[in-house]
Amino acid sequence: MTGKLFVVGLGPGNSSQLTPEAEAIVSNADDLFGYGPYIDRLPERATQRRHASDNSQEIQRAEQALMAAIDGKTVAVVSGGDPGVFGMAAAVCEALERGPAEWRQVDVAIVPGISAMLAVAARVGAPLGHDFCAISLSDNLKPWPVVEQRLELAAKAGFVMALYNPISRARPWQLERAFVKLGSVLPGTTPVVFGRAVGRPGERIAITQLSDAHSSSADMATCIIVGSAETRLVERPGSTPLVYTPRGAARPAA
Amino acid sequence: MTGKLFVVGLGPGNSSQLTPEAEAIVSNADDLFGYGPYIDRLPERATQRRHASDNSQEIQRAEQALMAAIDGKTVAVVSGGDPGVFGMAAAVCEALERGPAEWRQVDVAIVPGISAMLAVAARVGAPLGHDFCAISLSDNLKPWPVVEQRLELAAKAGFVMALYNPISRARPWQLERAFVKLGSVLPGTTPVVFGRAVGRPGERIAITQLSDAHSSSADMATCIIVGSAETRLVERPGSTPLVYTPRGAARPAA
Repeated sequence: MTGKLFVVGLGPGNSSQLTPEAEAIVSNADDLFGYGPYIDRLPERATQRRHASDNSQEIQRAEQALMAAIDGKTVAVVSGGDPGVFGMAAAVCEALERGPAEWRQVDVAIVPGISAMLAVAARVGAPLGHDFCAISLSDNLKPWPVVEQRLELAAKAGFVMALYNPISRARPWQLERAFVKLGSVLPGTTPVVFGRAVGRPGERIAITQLSDAHSSSADMATCIIVGSAETRLVERPGSTPLVYTPRGAARPAA
Repeated sequence: MTGKLFVVGLGPGNSSQLTPEAEAIVSNADDLFGYGPYIDRLPERATQRRHASDNSQEIQRAEQALMAAIDGKTVAVVSGGDPGVFGMAAAVCEALERGPAEWRQVDVAIVPGISAMLAVAARVGAPLGHDFCAISLSDNLKPWPVVEQRLELAAKAGFVMALYNPISRARPWQLERAFVKLGSVLPGTTPVVFGRAVGRPGERIAITQLSDAHSSSADMATCIIVGSAETRLVERPGSTPLVYTPRGAARPAA
């Protein structure tokens, strides 16, 4: 009998932002699959098998999880944030499509979580308060010119942007190039928010402007929000400014 | 002494997708402010005042909440989904910016929730599995030509799109025009998902393609996901297809 495969969003990383639905599923699963640091967030249980893997192993991880589900297990594949936003949900769908026909009989359910961009935005105000987009800066799976073209079109369209996977040891120069590209379309005063490990130990928030934004402010655990021409700062005495994008767009886009 | 103002995301609408953080805040607030149907989701408590208002009253609601916080109350302004995605967070920032200087002393915190697009995406697979954008189709606060231009640029950039506020009695024709505009850029076979009231009673999911997508399939409670040229269906015997967008973009954008 075929088991069940859940792809579960763990949210930003603290238990108060993990939904009861996700918590129940990861508690009751027979097998847990995920990137090591996400598996490490979960309490060990004697009845569960834990399968931690590296962060470039998404397809293999998805295949192993599907095989465990075919064996009748209740399986949870975990992602940080939301599994549908640059997480494991698409990898599971890809593996399922490419795999043997019997895998299509696995009961698959995706369980959403608070994504990093929502957590970062909440910390500073409402920068995603109007039309916005989410772009992965990784060129492991798409050519860099496609990334640059999307950045340019998004800026011209007036979208606020959440930039995922901004930088890594293997991709050291892409983020700086992205800032240069965005600076060719957007004003230098456009607000930029660096949100690192939001909701976890080591959280760090920095608010700057595009002309002062540099890749040295980001690491693998950072989600970056770049405003539109409408995004504003509200200064507050004795506190950090609020960053927000008004609900209306007064001016026509470029 | 100034109180505290929380802007809280209630998620899709069922308690299993409400974060413990949000639950604790709405339980302990002195005053709750929100659109009537969101307030109605919360249990009545003898110690709380409930201030339900209409869905065109965002700024007035935010002002009343800020005044209650200035009076020393612990206030929760509630939004469905995530308050930072076409919800009350931006309205509170706008009201605070325009209001008297003392409002800037209010301790404001935004509490994220599972947004509608994440909930809809999870129900069908991983349509937001690659770069995507969120666009409000409401032309109450921005000119319709800006909406059409954003749709066109987003389609050309290769973004999957989550369309919020697709239709209402006061805005009956915009969604059909949006589908026509998108059809001028994207293939007719592009997958389209209509997700109504996901996670609540009355949930309804429909998967179709762009050439067959019509505004009659949507109402105010619907979030629509329009795929990119990469978005695919995986047929499953005896079950609904999975809709997903692969993590990589093989071809360059248009």
